[in-house]
Amino acid sequence: MALRAGEHSQEAANGLKEKVLTLDSMNPCVRRVEYAVRGPIVQRALELEQELRQGVKKPFTEVIRANIGDAQAMGQIPITFPRQVLALCVHPDLLNSPDFPEDAKRKAERILQACGGHSLGAYSISAGVQMIREDVARYIERRDGGIPADPNNIFLSTGASDAIVTVLKLLVTGEGRTRTGVLIPIPQYPLYSAALAEFNAVQVDYYLDEERAWSLDVAELRRALGQARDHCRPRALCVINPGNPTGQVQTRECIEDVIRFAFEERLFLLADEVYQDNVYAKGSQFHSFKKVLMEMGPPYAARQELASFHSISKGYMGECGFRGGYVEVVNMDAAVKQQMQKLRSVRLCPPTPGQVLLDVAVSPPAPSDPSFAQFQAERRAVLAELAAKAKLTEQVFNEAPGIRCNPVQGAMYSFPRVQLPPRAVQRAQELGLAPDMFFCLRLLEETGICVVPGSGFGQREGTYHFRMTILPPMEKLRPLLEKLSQFHAKFTREYS
Amino acid sequence: MALRAGEHSQEAANGLKEKVLTLDSMNPCVRRVEYAVRGPIVQRALELEQELRQGVKKPFTEVIRANIGDAQAMGQIPITFPRQVLALCVHPDLLNSPDFPEDAKRKAERILQACGGHSLGAYSISAGVQMIREDVARYIERRDGGIPADPNNIFLSTGASDAIVTVLKLLVTGEGRTRTGVLIPIPQYPLYSAALAEFNAVQVDYYLDEERAWSLDVAELRRALGQARDHCRPRALCVINPGNPTGQVQTRECIEDVIRFAFEERLFLLADEVYQDNVYAKGSQFHSFKKVLMEMGPPYAARQELASFHSISKGYMGECGFRGGYVEVVNMDAAVKQQMQKLRSVRLCPPTPGQVLLDVAVSPPAPSDPSFAQFQAERRAVLAELAAKAKLTEQVFNEAPGIRCNPVQGAMYSFPRVQLPPRAVQRAQELGLAPDMFFCLRLLEETGICVVPGSGFGQREGTYHFRMTILPPMEKLRPLLEKLSQFHAKFTREYS
Repeated sequence: MALRAGEHSQEAANGLKEKVLTLDSMNPCVRRVEYAVRGPIVQRALELEQELRQGVKKPFTEVIRANIGDAQAMGQIPITFPRQVLALCVHPDLLNSPDFPEDAKRKAERILQACGGHSLGAYSISAGVQMIREDVARYIERRDGGIPADPNNIFLSTGASDAIVTVLKLLVTGEGRTRTGVLIPIPQYPLYSAALAEFNAVQVDYYLDEERAWSLDVAELRRALGQARDHCRPRALCVINPGNPTGQVQTRECIEDVIRFAFEERLFLLADEVYQDNVYAKGSQFHSFKKVLMEMGPPYAARQELASFHSISKGYMGECGFRGGYVEVVNMDAAVKQQMQKLRSVRLCPPTPGQVLLDVAVSPPAPSDPSFAQFQAERRAVLAELAAKAKLTEQVFNEAPGIRCNPVQGAMYSFPRVQLPPRAVQRAQELGLAPDMFFCLRLLEETGICVVPGSGFGQREGTYHFRMTILPPMEKLRPLLEKLSQFHAKFTREYS
Repeated sequence: MALRAGEHSQEAANGLKEKVLTLDSMNPCVRRVEYAVRGPIVQRALELEQELRQGVKKPFTEVIRANIGDAQAMGQIPITFPRQVLALCVHPDLLNSPDFPEDAKRKAERILQACGGHSLGAYSISAGVQMIREDVARYIERRDGGIPADPNNIFLSTGASDAIVTVLKLLVTGEGRTRTGVLIPIPQYPLYSAALAEFNAVQVDYYLDEERAWSLDVAELRRALGQARDHCRPRALCVINPGNPTGQVQTRECIEDVIRFAFEERLFLLADEVYQDNVYAKGSQFHSFKKVLMEMGPPYAARQELASFHSISKGYMGECGFRGGYVEVVNMDAAVKQQMQKLRSVRLCPPTPGQVLLDVAVSPPAPSDPSFAQFQAERRAVLAELAAKAKLTEQVFNEAPGIRCNPVQGAMYSFPRVQLPPRAVQRAQELGLAPDMFFCLRLLEETGICVVPGSGFGQREGTYHFRMTILPPMEKLRPLLEKLSQFHAKFTREYS
């Protein structure tokens, strides 16, 4: 019941007035949102960095942020060509400078021609600059061996997260037992659980098989779906390939099984493919859901609804701060696509600098271009180092007793399983902490290494993990991995 | 009820299968969203541009986009200094170039020092680069005559829209008669109605007084609130000052009245102040809600919750495409602020280039800096031309019979009222169009002038308006205004 003005003034006079917006009176869905990648452990890391700056003595000299896939924060050097193109677009006077290669200038001029007022300062249309959408479509066609892509099915976005949230938002409806359910992998990237909590949709967990290198098993999908149908209406299935935080790369057979399952069970497919350029393991290869779906032919190819997401934040560019990405929608109902267009238009447009970098990512220098050699060399160097770090991470962890790490076939993370002694688990419970949170906090306090507890991504009851990026520079990574292993041994002794 | 797999396969075989996501099965809140600024009229404008390119004959040679506050798309030249700073940040090799002023280099170096890995390619913290938040706080203190601003109350955002939506999202709760109600001005900027529809909150309209230059009257606020309390729980009040689409600038007295009202009625205040640098009329002056609130002293200053929004898209920069902005929250509950921080962190961070331009906007060159003179000259030129266009728009429209335009005291739009003959209204109804939509569509088809019907912003029953930006270049604006007035006269004759 709303109180009357008089009463409020009275309250105010008495100094009894409560805030309008409090933890109790705020949006309860927002309150339920969790996002471990930037959760309490990262807050503590920030505090420790401040203490170090203030000269407080610690058992370590720097905090190492292995919690988030932020390549350039870890020292990765930006690829030169995309930055040259963007600088030219931002400050077109530079088009007269002799210090920029001719192909960078050509690309910048072409992009500016496609912008309102020939400036990045104008809004683009809500789906992104039309020319860039066309370049994205051609990139997808090359990637998928010539299978056609329609620029009008491509929406540029503010990083992939923005596009993922938009598609989920379209799907959410119903109340009680008719609420939309969305199947997500466990372990998952917590954007999914956060968005579903915010939208008051039902999170339906399916477990990846740790014993089989985090593979996805359709029998498990079927189990999860069957149980979910008792209390919600499952309408969508999210797949992350290559896996975050789990690093597996799915086989073509697995993708076909998933598509058949989604088709039979009438589930809208969301394919999070932002790590499509990050595949390292021998014998592993990226297969896009779009390509597999189209090659499966009827009835699947013409019917199964799919949204595939990509980003400039990962891959070899690692341009996270610019917030660029896109979604390609396949077999989406035309009227729904219009609704999506409308919803996107309320936010006006994705940031134009991210659109520019995306354009370079999807149409890099050709062999005949002056920048080709340097671009390729830089690109290869980044991916080769990531591959070496993936291998090293797996090796060092698997040498440590009580730590088991699946092969990091792709993406940017290891998600090792750690044994925690019962007394440590008990101590954590006394402190009201998840056992792996307790482990990660102690690790941070004693070594300065910041990783995210597995409980932030989801894991089977009674198992404990953490996610650590493979991004620290090579010379720091080995000592880091060894330090972490040694800490685990010490922690285990301490609580045995 | 969910069907079983077998049945679906059967359906599929019979080719009877419906899409998972259709207009009927999608999120009904999203379906209710409307955003006229980029609505059907703009779609048609795009088509007409294509037809012109294809050589189709039209009674005009170009489409003039006066529908959206997109200064650079209308030919406004970007201010030099911010673009120099951003180019240096994007491509730091340029720090060695003799072509950049020393103060631009100093600023770029300072910003890069504050970025992860000294690169714009790293994520910033979710609230934005700390140093930039501190610069914003100092800007607010200067603007508000020394009243303190806390950097920890400032959240950088992806344009102002992003921040506005975040604060509204925190406020939304309840069901049925306890649903959150939010008071918004009519006419309004449709971001507000769109966000409230998306969040299934209750839009509570209060009408601005067209007869008194679109002024805000507390008696009208009280009327709207009283009626709303019968069917929802009003919790927030949105004010747009300077007004969009209405262009009025509020007096200090009015702002005090609004604050008193919000305090007594326990409403969270949202102050949309993105046009704070766009004040043109003699005797008009911008007063920030924060300053007025603080100067009102107890009990208001220490209690009234307020969120104030600003942006780099408007003002003198007009850097819309970069999507930069911020919100300052005042007297927000500490726990709620943490929740806001958490919610923001799910989207990782605002685009770093927008953060850089915002930093320049809040800490421009000082008198002692080499770039000061040019920066000030460019800034003054932009604002002086906008002031001249505002005056011209009002004059020309008020010379036309059947068109009445309030003074454009600030912002970037005129919102003239047009008389439409009964037969035109009748014809529109036959076509299933709002009468002013019918007028604007005819205007577009016959003159190429794209403006937004008043019905997209809200207006008193039986009155008709359109929103037209004052942004077209001077040499085009007068003929444009005359052409529009002549079309209205012709349209009136045609339907009389």
